[in-house]
Amino acid sequence: MKIVCSKSNLLQGVNIVSKAVPSKTTMSILECILIDATSNEIKLIANDMELGIETIIEGDIEDRGIIAIDAKIFSEIVRKLPDNEVTIEVDDNFKTIISCEKSKFNIAGKSGEDFSYLPYIEKNYFISVSQFALKETIRQTIFSTAMNDNNKLMTGELFEINSNTLKMVSLDGHRISIRKIELKDHYDQKKVVVPGKTLVELSKILSGEMDDMVNMFFTENHIVFEFDKTTVVSRLIEGEYFKIDQMLSSDYETKVKINKKEFLNCIDRATLLVKEGDKKPIIINITDGNMELKINSALGSMNENIDIEKIGKDIIIGFNPKFLIDALRVIDEEEINIYLVNSKAPCFIRDDEEKYIYLILPVNFNAINN
Amino acid sequence: MKIVCSKSNLLQGVNIVSKAVPSKTTMSILECILIDATSNEIKLIANDMELGIETIIEGDIEDRGIIAIDAKIFSEIVRKLPDNEVTIEVDDNFKTIISCEKSKFNIAGKSGEDFSYLPYIEKNYFISVSQFALKETIRQTIFSTAMNDNNKLMTGELFEINSNTLKMVSLDGHRISIRKIELKDHYDQKKVVVPGKTLVELSKILSGEMDDMVNMFFTENHIVFEFDKTTVVSRLIEGEYFKIDQMLSSDYETKVKINKKEFLNCIDRATLLVKEGDKKPIIINITDGNMELKINSALGSMNENIDIEKIGKDIIIGFNPKFLIDALRVIDEEEINIYLVNSKAPCFIRDDEEKYIYLILPVNFNAINN
Repeated sequence: MKIVCSKSNLLQGVNIVSKAVPSKTTMSILECILIDATSNEIKLIANDMELGIETIIEGDIEDRGIIAIDAKIFSEIVRKLPDNEVTIEVDDNFKTIISCEKSKFNIAGKSGEDFSYLPYIEKNYFISVSQFALKETIRQTIFSTAMNDNNKLMTGELFEINSNTLKMVSLDGHRISIRKIELKDHYDQKKVVVPGKTLVELSKILSGEMDDMVNMFFTENHIVFEFDKTTVVSRLIEGEYFKIDQMLSSDYETKVKINKKEFLNCIDRATLLVKEGDKKPIIINITDGNMELKINSALGSMNENIDIEKIGKDIIIGFNPKFLIDALRVIDEEEINIYLVNSKAPCFIRDDEEKYIYLILPVNFNAINN
Repeated sequence: MKIVCSKSNLLQGVNIVSKAVPSKTTMSILECILIDATSNEIKLIANDMELGIETIIEGDIEDRGIIAIDAKIFSEIVRKLPDNEVTIEVDDNFKTIISCEKSKFNIAGKSGEDFSYLPYIEKNYFISVSQFALKETIRQTIFSTAMNDNNKLMTGELFEINSNTLKMVSLDGHRISIRKIELKDHYDQKKVVVPGKTLVELSKILSGEMDDMVNMFFTENHIVFEFDKTTVVSRLIEGEYFKIDQMLSSDYETKVKINKKEFLNCIDRATLLVKEGDKKPIIINITDGNMELKINSALGSMNENIDIEKIGKDIIIGFNPKFLIDALRVIDEEEINIYLVNSKAPCFIRDDEEKYIYLILPVNFNAINN
């Protein structure tokens, strides 16, 4: 094999597919990036069996062939090469020479034979969204997926397509995040659960531009994202997702309108006094025109007042401050509405059109002690 | 005690003195910042017994007093306060209330009685340098102090004053770094060894401006740096520093003129193939007009050629690439001169006026195997 391409193209490609290289694995072939120059295009591929990424880079194929190279060493070499034409040459023993200007690296590659190619996907049904919308919506929902594997479904996000709406939902047992993307076309109904890890890695390589599109294809077991010259294939999580509709309610006893930034900064300050792992609730006391926030810990106490607009009953309610912070950080609106029922029922932060809904369960607290 | 000052002044002061708060200690009073408002000035002080820092912040003293507050929690609170007037109020039980706008923190302070004040220093003899020069020179020499305590003197830097020159020297047994600062006045001879840790922390709070000055005072056991409204007091390291003059020599067999950036980038690339802790030398083969660099490791091999100007004999010599990188990174010149004697003698990188000298010992290698 012999290929020639620019350092910048090569680096971009390597950075993209590296997202599918597992950090720990017992199969050393999975730690490799495959360079496939057997046809007319130079393809880079990485695949950890759950998530696979393939991207096409521009360049010349002087001699067709295929080689698997350790992803870590390969990406480090490419990153540090001078900004010029790079030649990659492989002999019959998989000895790989990477040269650029007067610099020449000699490393051992591996046969491409053992490499797992991306599964073949029949591309019938697909929907199209902007890279910007998908990247943003992942950021605005991913934080409430569950970290541990106790319930596999909680580690993923629901993608629910309904006519011209894509709804993305994540939940971890303490809170639910729901965001809707309006689609340009109308599509058939579809419900799949996409692994959180796939979305984290995907959002790193999406451009974030309004005008760049992503096509999403669905099969029984896989979801495929196609954009630019890149294809991302991920397994889906099997099983039926939680029935969230019955957890949502539009009834409320108290409605609060508050400046988001003031609210967020105040909670942020309050959490200074809480050591990591220490489950101290922030106590919120809502009266006419005023919200008082209080926190007590072994380190000391903090209280602060914020001007609000209130409709309905007074209420005292406690929350895990982290859950409030996570939700407030991803809301772009300056003013937000919070809907409360009582100190034991979930609170809802949502806009009038329900483009976003953040449900957070309160924490039990002893009002007398706080 | 009751004081009022702006958040920005307070934060700046806290950031400065925090550099003298030990990360680990068994004496909890050392983890505190002392606020001393017993006189007409608000002083912040921290002291780990080796290094002490005091700084004066602007503000109003409404009620004189003194309090010690845990440095970590105090600096976190101050950092997150709104950008406005901050009031710190302490009652007789050391209960401390920090308030700003509608935010109010309540934490437990400590009596200032147990706090170790900075030692009193008689300020007779001092020299003056710009903050820029001192900060730069620390950066350009600190990396070759020894990390471990086996030889205490190697963990510090020699400050040698001779007429109108301040020479700063560090060495770790494998290399020596020497930089000279020209002083505006002539001073008496003086030789002290300053702890590396002091210099690291000091350089973080020096402004780096040409026009800002630092005064350095010397006593038997201490060095004091005075600048802006800050005083840094450090113990000196006892003992006689190494006689470096006899290690320096101006004889050479080979002189090489090379582009610094090309040389540095090339070594940087070569070290990709060296895992941390793996002691692989870089082999440098110098012939007329050309330097070839080679490295071999379990991961592969790399070689590269650089155009040079050479005077004298051809030579093959091996180095620990890290030592070359460390020295090259802190040299600002575009072109540098390297002086070599033979493959077992140290190489010197120095300018003609000897404002800087970097001596690096070579590594034994088997030329046939490489």
